Amino acid sequence: MAKGLPKRSENYSEWYNEIVKRADLAENSAVRGCMVIKPYGFAIWEKMQRALDDMFKATGHVNAYFPLFVPKSFLEKEEEHAEGFAKECAVVTHYRLKANPDGKGLMVDPDAKLEEELIIRPTSEAIIWNTYKNWIQSWRDLPLLINQWANVVRWEMRTRLFLRTAEFLWQEGHTAHATEQEAVEEAERMLGVYAEFAENWMALPVVQGVKSPNERFAGALETYCIEAMMQDGKALQAGTSHFLGQNFAKSFDVKFVNKENQLEYAWATSWGVSTRLMGALIMAHSDDNGLVLPPKLAPIQVVIIPIHKTEEDLAKITEKVEPIISELKAAGISVKFDDDDKQRSGWKFAEYELKGVPVRLAMGMRDLENGTIEIARRDTLTKESVPVDGVADTVKGLLEEMQDAIYQKALAFREENTFVVDTWDEFKAQIEKGGFVMAHWDGTAETEEKIKEETKATIRCIPLVGIEEAGKCVYTGAESPRRVVFAKAY
Amino acid sequence: MAKGLPKRSENYSEWYNEIVKRADLAENSAVRGCMVIKPYGFAIWEKMQRALDDMFKATGHVNAYFPLFVPKSFLEKEEEHAEGFAKECAVVTHYRLKANPDGKGLMVDPDAKLEEELIIRPTSEAIIWNTYKNWIQSWRDLPLLINQWANVVRWEMRTRLFLRTAEFLWQEGHTAHATEQEAVEEAERMLGVYAEFAENWMALPVVQGVKSPNERFAGALETYCIEAMMQDGKALQAGTSHFLGQNFAKSFDVKFVNKENQLEYAWATSWGVSTRLMGALIMAHSDDNGLVLPPKLAPIQVVIIPIHKTEEDLAKITEKVEPIISELKAAGISVKFDDDDKQRSGWKFAEYELKGVPVRLAMGMRDLENGTIEIARRDTLTKESVPVDGVADTVKGLLEEMQDAIYQKALAFREENTFVVDTWDEFKAQIEKGGFVMAHWDGTAETEEKIKEETKATIRCIPLVGIEEAGKCVYTGAESPRRVVFAKAY
Repeated sequence: MAKGLPKRSENYSEWYNEIVKRADLAENSAVRGCMVIKPYGFAIWEKMQRALDDMFKATGHVNAYFPLFVPKSFLEKEEEHAEGFAKECAVVTHYRLKANPDGKGLMVDPDAKLEEELIIRPTSEAIIWNTYKNWIQSWRDLPLLINQWANVVRWEMRTRLFLRTAEFLWQEGHTAHATEQEAVEEAERMLGVYAEFAENWMALPVVQGVKSPNERFAGALETYCIEAMMQDGKALQAGTSHFLGQNFAKSFDVKFVNKENQLEYAWATSWGVSTRLMGALIMAHSDDNGLVLPPKLAPIQVVIIPIHKTEEDLAKITEKVEPIISELKAAGISVKFDDDDKQRSGWKFAEYELKGVPVRLAMGMRDLENGTIEIARRDTLTKESVPVDGVADTVKGLLEEMQDAIYQKALAFREENTFVVDTWDEFKAQIEKGGFVMAHWDGTAETEEKIKEETKATIRCIPLVGIEEAGKCVYTGAESPRRVVFAKAY
Repeated sequence: MAKGLPKRSENYSEWYNEIVKRADLAENSAVRGCMVIKPYGFAIWEKMQRALDDMFKATGHVNAYFPLFVPKSFLEKEEEHAEGFAKECAVVTHYRLKANPDGKGLMVDPDAKLEEELIIRPTSEAIIWNTYKNWIQSWRDLPLLINQWANVVRWEMRTRLFLRTAEFLWQEGHTAHATEQEAVEEAERMLGVYAEFAENWMALPVVQGVKSPNERFAGALETYCIEAMMQDGKALQAGTSHFLGQNFAKSFDVKFVNKENQLEYAWATSWGVSTRLMGALIMAHSDDNGLVLPPKLAPIQVVIIPIHKTEEDLAKITEKVEPIISELKAAGISVKFDDDDKQRSGWKFAEYELKGVPVRLAMGMRDLENGTIEIARRDTLTKESVPVDGVADTVKGLLEEMQDAIYQKALAFREENTFVVDTWDEFKAQIEKGGFVMAHWDGTAETEEKIKEETKATIRCIPLVGIEEAGKCVYTGAESPRRVVFAKAY
C-alpha cells in the first residue's frame, strides 16, 4: 500500500510532494522553478483542457495564438500592470550564441544584443491589446471573444510543483466589448464557467466572489475569483476573471466608433486558469493511499486485473472480461486490462490506488467458477463481489455515483471547516486552527494588511452570494455591510 | 471576387502573403519575426493538431510537457547540435525588472542576472534527454514514447508568416529505445504517420525520403523527411523524423541495463511538424480567388446563404434549410447558416470563397418555389441547382469527393512538374523553370554544395521508394546508385 507515503495528518506538505512524485504527475526539472509534467499528470491536464475548451467554445469564444514575447515598452504602458509584474519578469536580451574563443562551449554573442529587451509573457494583456488596436475600429468588430492556451513565466522565488512554478501552462481569455455592462457580464459569465468546471468536473466546491482591492489583478477594476478549500483547511484560488474597464484600451489606444458614431475606448476582460488546478485537484480529494480522482478527469477510469497462476487461467479470465471491456469502451469509458506478468497483483492494486484509478475490477479463478467479479472503488476503498453479468452497467452507475460522492465529501468538509466568527480573539484562534473564517471587515486596505501581518490570513473573497448582514469589523469594530472569507492560502 | 488579390502567375509570393492576411489566418506581430495566429487560422491548426494527436496516440505515444528553458550548458553537451542551433538562440539573461531611477518606465535589474544563461528551446532534445537520464535505468523502462506540443524559438533573420517565424508552434516526439533497430523503426513509423496525415488530411502528396548528410538535423545520424511541391514548383519540407543513434544518450549519460544485464546507452529518435504545415496547406491548393481547404481541415465545411428581400422570405428559407443543417450537424459536418443582414449575398459569396469554405449552399425565392437549392464547390468553382430533398446526402458525398479531388489535383501537378534529367545543361535549365528534378548525384557533400551555389537547388531527399538505377552524377559524372530529388525550396 504505497509504502511510506507520509500521512496527511502528520505532514500535509510532504504528503502532497510525495503524491505528485510517486503518482508520476510531475517533477522538478534542472531549470530552477520549472517543472516537467509527466505523461500521467499531463493526461489529467489534457482532460481538463478539453472540457474547458468545449465550455469556452459553447459560450462563443474562439482560440488564437499571440507571441511569447512582450517588448518591455509594451509592458510599461499600463502602469499598475507593469508594477505588478516587473519583479517576476524573465528577460531576453540577446539572440545569438557563438563559440567561446577562450575555450570550449558557447557564449552569448555580445554583438547580438537586442535593441529593446523582450519579456517572456507573464500574462498577455499588453501584447494582445497592442494587437487588438488594429482589429477594432467599429462596434461591428465587437465583441472580440478570444482565448489562448499558452505557457507563461513568472519568476517566483519559492516554487512548488503545480501550485507555483516559474513556467506554467494556462489559458487566458481576452475579450473586448462595446459597453461596460457587456464586459462585466462577460467577466461574470466566465467566473460561472470556471465554477461549473470546478464543481462538475473536478468535484471541487468553490466559493465565487470578488477580491478586495489589495488582491486584485494588476490593472483590473474588479477581480472575480473562485476559492476552494484544501484538506488542510487552507484556501486555494482556483481561477480568476477580471473586469479591466478601459485601462488597457486607454494604454494601447484602442478606440472604436460606437452606434452613436462617437469614438470610445473598448471595454475589456481577461480570465484564466492554469496547471495550478492540478494542485487543487490533488490536494482536495486524495488520501494517505495516494491520488483520488473524480472519474470525469481520470485518464484510466477502470482497471481490470486478472489474478491467475497459469497462462491457461489467464486465457480463461481474459475471455470472460473481454466483453466487459468492449461494453465499457463503447460507453466511452477508458479501461485498462493489466495482464502484465512482470508484476504481482498485490503490487498492481497498490499502484492503481496510488494513481487514483476510480474503479478496480479483479477476477480470479474462484470468481470465474462463481460467475462473479470483485469491484473496488477508490474513493471509499470499499469492495464487493458482484455478478459478472451486467457488471458494465454497474461500473457505469458507480462512476457517476463516485463523481458526485467525491464532490459531496469535499463540500461537507468545507462546511465543517467554515466558521462564523465575531471577535478578534476567536478570529486569531480559528485562523490558527485552519479553515474559512467568515468575519466582518471594515473595507479598508489598512485593516486587511494588519490582519495579514498578525495572522497570515488574507481575504480570499467577498462572496457574490452572501447574506447582507451588517456588523462590526472583527479587527477595528468599524461598520461592515457583510462578512468576507478569511483564510490562509496557497 | 476578392478584389485585388494578386494572381499566382504574376506574383506568387505576394499572392501568398495576401491570402494569409485577407483570409484572416495570421499577421505579423509587433515583435520582430513573431506572428499572431488569428482565430480562423488557429481553427485550422487545431484541426491538424487533433488529427495528428489521435494518430500519435494510436501508435502508442503519450503527451508530456518539458520546460521552455534550456540551460546553456545543456545545449553545449551534444556538440553538433549546439553548433547547429547556436546562431538562432534567444537568450534569457535576467529575471527581474525595476523602476528606472533616471525617469519613467522600467529597466532590467542588473542585480537579477542569472548565473547561467537560459536558452529559449529551439528544440528540446537537450532538456528532455537530461530528464530521461532519471527515467531510464532498465530495459523495462523502454521504450519511452513521448510527444510534446509546444512553442519554440529560432531567431531567424528572414521570416515569413507560417513558413519561417522566430517563434512557432509544433509538436516534438522524443523516444528512447533499447535497440538500434527499434529506434530506426520508430523514426520510419513516424515518417509514415506524417505522410499519411499529409496525404489523407491535408490532401498533400509527399515524397518520403532521407536527407543528404548536409541537410541532416544537427545531431542526427539519419533525417527522414516528407517533401511536398507547392504551386510555383518549389519544394517545402513538411515534416522530419530523426534517428539520433546514441548521440544524446552519450551526451547526457543515459544508460540502461539491457536484457543481458549489461549497461548500454539508449537509442533515440525525435520527430516534428509545425505551423509551417499551414503554409504548405495554403500554397499547395489555393487559387486566385483565395484559400482552398480540403474538407477534413476546414473549420466551416458548409456555408448556407439565404437570398431574400424581406424578413418574411428569410423566415420561409430558414424553415426550409433548418432540417438540412440538423442533418449535416448530426453527420459531424460543421455548417454555418449566414443570415447576417449587414452584408449582401454577393459579398458573402466572395468572403467564403476567400476563406476556402468547401461547399456553399444558396437558396433564393425561386429555389423555394421549385424545391431546389444551389450547391457550389470551392475547389472547381462549379455550381449547380439540385433538389432540396436529399441535399444533405449530396453534400456528404461531395465533401468526400472534394477531399480526394484536391489530392488528385495536387498529385497530377507534382507529376507534371517532376522531371528526369541527365545532363548538367538540362539540369540548370529545368531548375530555373521549377519543379522537382530527378537526377543522379555522386553522393559527396562537395558536389551538393557546388550545385547549390550554381543553381540554388538543394537535394530535397533521397527517396525511400526509388528505382535502383545506376547512373552518372549530373555534375561530376561520377558513379551514382540512384536518382535523388533536387529542387529550390522554401
